Amino acid sequence: MNSGAKQLSIGMLGCGVVGSQVARLLQDDEQELSERSGAVLRLLKVGVRTAGPREGVNPALITTDLQSIVSDPSINIVIEVMGGIEPAKSLILEAIKNGKSVITANKALLATHGHELFNAADAAKVDLYYEAAVAGAIPIIRSMRESLAGDQITRVMGIVNGTTNYILTKMHEEGRAFDEVLKEAQALGYAEADPTADIEGHDAAAKAALLASLAFHSTVVIDEVYCEGISKISSDDVAAAKSMNSVIKLLAIAELTVKDEISVRVHPVILPAAHPLASVRNAFNAVYVEAEAAGQLMFYGRGAGGAPTASAILGDLVAVARHAAYSTVGYGESDYADLDIAPIGAVKSQFFVRLHVADKSGVLASIAQTFASENVSIQTVRQAGLGEDAELVVVTHAASEDALDACIAKLKKMDIVSKVESVIRVEGAQS
Amino acid sequence: MNSGAKQLSIGMLGCGVVGSQVARLLQDDEQELSERSGAVLRLLKVGVRTAGPREGVNPALITTDLQSIVSDPSINIVIEVMGGIEPAKSLILEAIKNGKSVITANKALLATHGHELFNAADAAKVDLYYEAAVAGAIPIIRSMRESLAGDQITRVMGIVNGTTNYILTKMHEEGRAFDEVLKEAQALGYAEADPTADIEGHDAAAKAALLASLAFHSTVVIDEVYCEGISKISSDDVAAAKSMNSVIKLLAIAELTVKDEISVRVHPVILPAAHPLASVRNAFNAVYVEAEAAGQLMFYGRGAGGAPTASAILGDLVAVARHAAYSTVGYGESDYADLDIAPIGAVKSQFFVRLHVADKSGVLASIAQTFASENVSIQTVRQAGLGEDAELVVVTHAASEDALDACIAKLKKMDIVSKVESVIRVEGAQS
Repeated sequence: MNSGAKQLSIGMLGCGVVGSQVARLLQDDEQELSERSGAVLRLLKVGVRTAGPREGVNPALITTDLQSIVSDPSINIVIEVMGGIEPAKSLILEAIKNGKSVITANKALLATHGHELFNAADAAKVDLYYEAAVAGAIPIIRSMRESLAGDQITRVMGIVNGTTNYILTKMHEEGRAFDEVLKEAQALGYAEADPTADIEGHDAAAKAALLASLAFHSTVVIDEVYCEGISKISSDDVAAAKSMNSVIKLLAIAELTVKDEISVRVHPVILPAAHPLASVRNAFNAVYVEAEAAGQLMFYGRGAGGAPTASAILGDLVAVARHAAYSTVGYGESDYADLDIAPIGAVKSQFFVRLHVADKSGVLASIAQTFASENVSIQTVRQAGLGEDAELVVVTHAASEDALDACIAKLKKMDIVSKVESVIRVEGAQS
Repeated sequence: MNSGAKQLSIGMLGCGVVGSQVARLLQDDEQELSERSGAVLRLLKVGVRTAGPREGVNPALITTDLQSIVSDPSINIVIEVMGGIEPAKSLILEAIKNGKSVITANKALLATHGHELFNAADAAKVDLYYEAAVAGAIPIIRSMRESLAGDQITRVMGIVNGTTNYILTKMHEEGRAFDEVLKEAQALGYAEADPTADIEGHDAAAKAALLASLAFHSTVVIDEVYCEGISKISSDDVAAAKSMNSVIKLLAIAELTVKDEISVRVHPVILPAAHPLASVRNAFNAVYVEAEAAGQLMFYGRGAGGAPTASAILGDLVAVARHAAYSTVGYGESDYADLDIAPIGAVKSQFFVRLHVADKSGVLASIAQTFASENVSIQTVRQAGLGEDAELVVVTHAASEDALDACIAKLKKMDIVSKVESVIRVEGAQS
């Protein structure tokens, strides 16, 4: 590094699990970061909401005056790792207005107000980077935005929530029930005391919105993401999937429909064991991308945790610092395609339907007739006796959600159907 | 795209399987490429060595005057997909000297003369991008150089040759012999008539040199890569690995040793089935990266073929065009760390040793004594009777190549050892 290199000062908003790792890496790797960015990077201020020392962070840097970080003219780059909508949103907007590039890990904020924030960054000619907001250390944002910039992405499917993947892995491998594994995950710190955001798919939905926006050059917000969690998945469902040589995973899916609309959704999916996503175990994340020329790609790694998230933030920091050093900006967010969101009812999938029926002759014919009446074609049926009841597992060919819903409504009214136990979408199989 | 956007003209050297796909995508996606790069991209000339029409390429663009492409002042960016050392090297150097940024898929050239070419690009302040040179459509170069720029990579292991992975997959899944599968692969067009570069690991070695250079900010050339191919792998080896719940893969490995040297090598490896690389089947490629903060990452996709390789080239093209539009350049190649290459003898691995011995009492003790005499510690031994002979499969704890070699030399001299059948390194297991 020559001594005339540009100096860039960094302000950080938040100093929790991720922020303290960012501070550590900034100190430990100062020389390398300079070599790689072409600028000397110096952490100038760390803004926190409650005063007090933070392990490994020089106490002189700590301030509770968050506003001072975004208004200080000597700060060039702001890293936001405080989370939540406000005050993060106002602080980021003001930092941008003041000409500072921003790096954020805040998926909820971007999936709600991304359009406003990206427009502000574009107008101010600064960078707004967010690799850490989706799938932690996995470089999925840069890969989709830059590496696939000359290709057409047609579909993205991701395991983007480690908590639910941990729970589903344990249910699959150990045959245990959802409630029991969830309690264990909470005890181990893998799930929060209030696990709703994870298990009901809201965390994954925010990431789905970001992935869909990026893949299809359109603005997709979290409220447009169809969302089902995993709390209704039973050990019987997992066992039935296993007997089909498949696994159940919670996926965030964004795909282009035949009508050039975006289908964006989060829900449990039955995947064949041979699918690359099926072998992603425990808290690991992975994003599977299909593109017109590249074909199938998969990106795998740690989706959460202080150090992996900090790695993604520092990757962004080097890029943003390079741009600042060379007085340019990187790829902005693009929404030129401006595609519509497909209504969930029109989306086509294969479906797994598990139901309990009277164990007498002619039942299968009646059930098949009901599916046929809604033009839902059956791929396979498996029947298992249960004493008075029989269990039927039906896998359909691709059908629309609307057709399947109509079918389920009719099944529920049939005398011979005692219960529709579960309906789960099936992906990655030949339809 | 506003009408005042910068126009950039592209010259392409070569128009085979990859080049024709690049030409197709440039035409089909013209509008999107402009939106994404901020410049209007126009293919101006396509240089070929033998005249004649190329499918899907406007005949007016075709020229056999390769020199004219690198000297034409109206060409801004050169894409080199002709392969080979010369004339590719001279043409690229002249293009760079003339201020043109260059995108190449030429791994052999970069792994031999990369240092000279990157220095020339640096001096001329132009980009020299090469995502397509390693693992086709998989964005491993950009991910390592940019996304992990704030992290410390400690190890890279890749399945970077589709032909050998196809052969090993068939041997594993179908229990067939190497020669038979190779012939089939040749008939199907997955292997070349002269398969040496693939099966002896030379193709993978060029990629190993590029990955090692990038991971460790040093210059590594192909001649520094220790290289063993898969032609000696027998169906007995594959079966023995399978019985250990493992698979045999040809890996390109680049890792930092405890002495801060770079170990860079290509050889067959026994990997546990649970390792993320173990499930990479057929002609797919994958690169597994370990970094200090990010932890374990894996990148998976199509490593060869016209369209996947063209996708990588167009991703680079958008980046290079953006830089040209904004009058800047991207991340250059860095070699500031300038680390030495570790001699192969000092590299430590676990080893699988399969040998035939006399089936009598005391043999195991003698064999164990021989390993101990070279301080090679044994992790497991498995014995199978073979009539007069017995087969022993020894897996060692981590030992240096030198110690293991000394051990094997001693074993070969023992009366009770009829043959040392195979020695294969073991990775990804607990030592």
